[in-house]
Amino acid sequence: MNPVVESLVAHRTIRSFRPDAIEDETVGAILEAGTRAATGGYFQPYSFIVIDDPKLIERIAPYSAPVAVLVVVDHHRFQRFLEFHDAVFPINSPLNLLLAYWDAVIALQNVVVAAESLGLGTVYIGDVPSKELGEPLGLPDDVFPAGLVVVGHPAQDPDRRRRLPAEAVVHHNRYHVPTDGQVRSWYRRYGEILEKEFDELPEEERAQLQRAGIGNGLQKFCRDMVGFFDRADHHVLTNLARGGFEIADWV
Amino acid sequence: MNPVVESLVAHRTIRSFRPDAIEDETVGAILEAGTRAATGGYFQPYSFIVIDDPKLIERIAPYSAPVAVLVVVDHHRFQRFLEFHDAVFPINSPLNLLLAYWDAVIALQNVVVAAESLGLGTVYIGDVPSKELGEPLGLPDDVFPAGLVVVGHPAQDPDRRRRLPAEAVVHHNRYHVPTDGQVRSWYRRYGEILEKEFDELPEEERAQLQRAGIGNGLQKFCRDMVGFFDRADHHVLTNLARGGFEIADWV
Repeated sequence: MNPVVESLVAHRTIRSFRPDAIEDETVGAILEAGTRAATGGYFQPYSFIVIDDPKLIERIAPYSAPVAVLVVVDHHRFQRFLEFHDAVFPINSPLNLLLAYWDAVIALQNVVVAAESLGLGTVYIGDVPSKELGEPLGLPDDVFPAGLVVVGHPAQDPDRRRRLPAEAVVHHNRYHVPTDGQVRSWYRRYGEILEKEFDELPEEERAQLQRAGIGNGLQKFCRDMVGFFDRADHHVLTNLARGGFEIADWV
Repeated sequence: MNPVVESLVAHRTIRSFRPDAIEDETVGAILEAGTRAATGGYFQPYSFIVIDDPKLIERIAPYSAPVAVLVVVDHHRFQRFLEFHDAVFPINSPLNLLLAYWDAVIALQNVVVAAESLGLGTVYIGDVPSKELGEPLGLPDDVFPAGLVVVGHPAQDPDRRRRLPAEAVVHHNRYHVPTDGQVRSWYRRYGEILEKEFDELPEEERAQLQRAGIGNGLQKFCRDMVGFFDRADHHVLTNLARGGFEIADWV
């Protein structure tokens, strides 16, 4: 269609990077692209923390790369301004959290799109809302780690990852509730991948899972996700509270 | 830098559109760009609903435009698949909500970036998580309205909106807590705009606000935001519950 759509459609996640640094000018350009994303509030309720200290990158991301960009939902500086005028912004609202998170991650997506267009590779780190970043990054109150991307020169050339067919994801004027056959066909290949992984587990591990009532790949996937979220969610809620979002006050 | 960064940096929100339809091929291209955004889950936990029915657009957005694209956090189809295998995905987790919301809105941001690169204009509608869309759009359980953008041929040519200076938003390896002077200078202009609006209120309205303890533009802004969130949040929580996110179970 045009170079922009071509670049978006060509996206692949890169997980291996050459050690080469990224030029300051390039970092500046991708961050400017980030800050030009739409933002609902006049006050831009997010900040970027650009990390190029190798020890910090090692601590927050499971990849070796020259740069990581953290985006935080940030009400700190605006609260400070409001305090000068005895005004208090209602941070702790479900809609405010969603709106600020939206602003933060679309700004980070612009960073990704800009970086890829300049030949760089990127990988998002999903569990960042559960990470303890307050001390290593000096985060003040009213700041919540929302999203993280690692950026570098690609050291691999993977294929694009498969997506669901458009008919599964795109609806027209009304949600089309799929038939059982559609649902089966859309996820068949993914189910087969999980089933193969399950079949290839060491026999003792598989037997142990089966004794615990976990008899197929999808059940194991869900069990693993339960464990992943259980380990993470306490930290997510702690980080949300530090960021100004006390969930207990919502209910 | 290159056409992609140039297009990102040139973003302006468009709020007035010509009535001309958008070609199917164009809509297809921008949606394909959307679905190629990174996604953490193998199962793409979102769907797009493309709306070109004028009555529906009128109902969900305060703009007249040929197309609106709603993105929903969507666990419906994957849950259906898992049920065939007696597996239950743990939807109701804070981290799962954030991850799925992240995937949904960055897919929508790709839609925006692609649309703008093709000469179209866009405006995000922020209060969509609070809208009652279940009946008009036939949303099933486990679907949550996450983000909405209106798309059309621009009928206006506005300047780009101001952003905070880079020093306010970009940190390097560590969050730099700003000085009072920095905070004042970054938001001075915004404070002046609100103060001017407050000064220009009808005298009776301003007197009434002052009797209620609201004596400047920033205090009025915060009071308005409290009202906006108070009206919205009950609906947000209802929509979250329909989407599979029972916040009461988090605490």
